[in-house]
Amino acid sequence: MYAASATMNKDDFFLPHGKLNIRRLARFISLIEDNPEEAQADLAQVYCENHQALLLGITGPPGVGKSTLTDRLIAHYRSLDKKVAVIAVDASSPFTGGAILGDRIRMSSHATDAEVFIRSMGSRGNLGGLAPATMDVMNLLTSVGFDVVLIESVGVGQTEVDIMHLVDTVLLVLMPGLGDDVQALKAGMMEIADIFVINKADKPGAQQLQSEIAMLLSLRQERLAWTPPIVETVATEARGIEALTAAIAQHSEYLNSRHAEEKQRKRDHRFQRMVQQKILTLALHFLQDNQAYQQWAREASAAAVNPYAAMRDFENHIKLKWEV
Amino acid sequence: MYAASATMNKDDFFLPHGKLNIRRLARFISLIEDNPEEAQADLAQVYCENHQALLLGITGPPGVGKSTLTDRLIAHYRSLDKKVAVIAVDASSPFTGGAILGDRIRMSSHATDAEVFIRSMGSRGNLGGLAPATMDVMNLLTSVGFDVVLIESVGVGQTEVDIMHLVDTVLLVLMPGLGDDVQALKAGMMEIADIFVINKADKPGAQQLQSEIAMLLSLRQERLAWTPPIVETVATEARGIEALTAAIAQHSEYLNSRHAEEKQRKRDHRFQRMVQQKILTLALHFLQDNQAYQQWAREASAAAVNPYAAMRDFENHIKLKWEV
Repeated sequence: MYAASATMNKDDFFLPHGKLNIRRLARFISLIEDNPEEAQADLAQVYCENHQALLLGITGPPGVGKSTLTDRLIAHYRSLDKKVAVIAVDASSPFTGGAILGDRIRMSSHATDAEVFIRSMGSRGNLGGLAPATMDVMNLLTSVGFDVVLIESVGVGQTEVDIMHLVDTVLLVLMPGLGDDVQALKAGMMEIADIFVINKADKPGAQQLQSEIAMLLSLRQERLAWTPPIVETVATEARGIEALTAAIAQHSEYLNSRHAEEKQRKRDHRFQRMVQQKILTLALHFLQDNQAYQQWAREASAAAVNPYAAMRDFENHIKLKWEV
Repeated sequence: MYAASATMNKDDFFLPHGKLNIRRLARFISLIEDNPEEAQADLAQVYCENHQALLLGITGPPGVGKSTLTDRLIAHYRSLDKKVAVIAVDASSPFTGGAILGDRIRMSSHATDAEVFIRSMGSRGNLGGLAPATMDVMNLLTSVGFDVVLIESVGVGQTEVDIMHLVDTVLLVLMPGLGDDVQALKAGMMEIADIFVINKADKPGAQQLQSEIAMLLSLRQERLAWTPPIVETVATEARGIEALTAAIAQHSEYLNSRHAEEKQRKRDHRFQRMVQQKILTLALHFLQDNQAYQQWAREASAAAVNPYAAMRDFENHIKLKWEV
């Protein structure tokens, strides 16, 4: 249709001596952001399953110290000689492309480490939000051999929940003294957290926050096979990082022990997301190119008619078919 | 197709003596949340344009005092004898339905005022997010005669931006001392703000925040016909509320003076959103009911094949058509 044919394969992302071609990788990620449809053919070519990769999500409200924590985790996995990639997602910047977070990390101690790849992403008005592009980039990074992909996302909204559904292990980072509003926010994020991190745990109120989280966890109705641990850290002083990485390792083991069902569940979820994104893109491209629809939309929108009546009319015009 | 036929008209939302039937209104909003497709036929019947309605959005990070500010605005518009509706959107609670914010307002001083309608909404796993359901509820409320619809949304993410695009006037609420992370967040939200509110302006740092916002505003590349004012408030003490409502009135005047283009632009935007939501819903329902697709999806997802290759295959199967 409008999809380009593949022009790259996996080898194209490596330099002759086997090192990753960072510049090409970065350029391809920009293509995913700017024109995801055009990138699909190459993604199909480059994609390969990487069962060993650790897909880690870090989310939480602004100001709790996620970037510092990310820095510490990079250091930890580098000390184990893992190749680490960080995707810093800034869902809040649909207009500016939100490079702020990523820049902050990039300026950190790992900037000169060739085995650490850091990339920031903002939603550049993608259809269907940031999650699909983030998934594409994550798939690309694991395909070219990164052992750890860390997705850092600021915020506690629907976008963050969507993004966190893509990874295997989700860290929800909080801190003492966030106040009432954040108490409210926590409830919605609770369900996606595999590990709770209380950062800045040297501040007053850490014990209280711990009790509150434990209480909220105990209120969960379903019996959980995995009980999210609560880990206290002071990322600026590298305190609690060992306990945190141990908790991450335990969660990975848990996932592996339930390999068949958990992995398939996560794979199904990602597949559904891709179908949803695909059909939306296809449909909107179809409408964009369809003169008869364009004519109809102009008339319907300009006529100040009842938009709900217009949608019923829309339904009568549009036809879908699955050809075997 | 699967859409129910209309069972209600506008009169059904009123009691015999002309008072609004709040219970029926609330029940219908629940239908919009739970089963938006089923509500469409009735919405088409009930909908009528209400050009006079003030559509006001309030957003900003947690803890800045949005609820208190909302309370003050309700009081102001009630003093002008306007009928006021509040939709408290909690995008962060996709699982719990997020009634927290709304509850907080509901317990406030306006709880017993029959001309104030307050409703909280959380995303209950709606396709396409919260914005479409919020738009439906907003349209319903203006159709049945509310003069002011106030949409309060916690957060600074993509969902909030989507929701704020629905209204005419957006207040972005900040406060002094939010820290670095929030500085970052502000950039993305800047573009949708029609009025900046610095709440808790009696705290240290209000002047600095004001300068920062002014600086960011001056960096905007396009020449704006409307320069967003920066209003300082202390909502808990009702300070600055008059200046704020004056700024809101000025923005309404500005919109009215550019009636033709601005209103049409906003109407086009909402229409596009409805089409996007509609086509996604139609397509996903179509796939859900299609045996051949279901068979294909089961095989493709379970076979651990390359999902990008599967999407290309998907594209070959699915066909769209616009019938005139």
